[in-house]
Amino acid sequence: MPPPRKHLFICTDTDCAPKRGSKETYGAFLEALKARDLVDEVWVNATNCLDGCGFGPNLVVYPDGVFYYGVRPDDVEEIVESHLVGGRVVERLTTYGE
Amino acid sequence: MPPPRKHLFICTDTDCAPKRGSKETYGAFLEALKARDLVDEVWVNATNCLDGCGFGPNLVVYPDGVFYYGVRPDDVEEIVESHLVGGRVVERLTTYGE
Repeated sequence: MPPPRKHLFICTDTDCAPKRGSKETYGAFLEALKARDLVDEVWVNATNCLDGCGFGPNLVVYPDGVFYYGVRPDDVEEIVESHLVGGRVVERLTTYGE
Repeated sequence: MPPPRKHLFICTDTDCAPKRGSKETYGAFLEALKARDLVDEVWVNATNCLDGCGFGPNLVVYPDGVFYYGVRPDDVEEIVESHLVGGRVVERLTTYGE
């Protein structure tokens, strides 16, 4: 089976991630992709620890290998439109740290 | 932060995956990579459903975008040596189906 065009993995199941709102961010991606009818070509999965535990919610977009840190539900539309649709990385969310 | 050289995601947390031995396969990858001192350059994460629920344990290797299906602990050494170290896909495990 071919891979999806973009595949996003977001940390949700450690002790720290849910406390930092990762499940809300995960849900916001699912909703944003569903609203654009993109769920077949852009997949979103919940995963365990991706490092950077203190400044999540953290996620990675493949095949690009781009990590995003501290992604709040309010950031989701920008990542979807800029990166997942337009192919432009949202640089302001790629800093490893608070 | 740069992405790992290879990043493997294996489905473990749905109703079906653990029953099919996904946690043992996940553990076998962790052990095989640790034994080779590869844990910094090859990451392994547990994820939720990757599709193909009836014929897991299923996993995907990025940035390659290669899906493997029905991966048992006995298959792990071959995937590590051939694909993750040698760069050669293990074609016999890429068939979507039983």
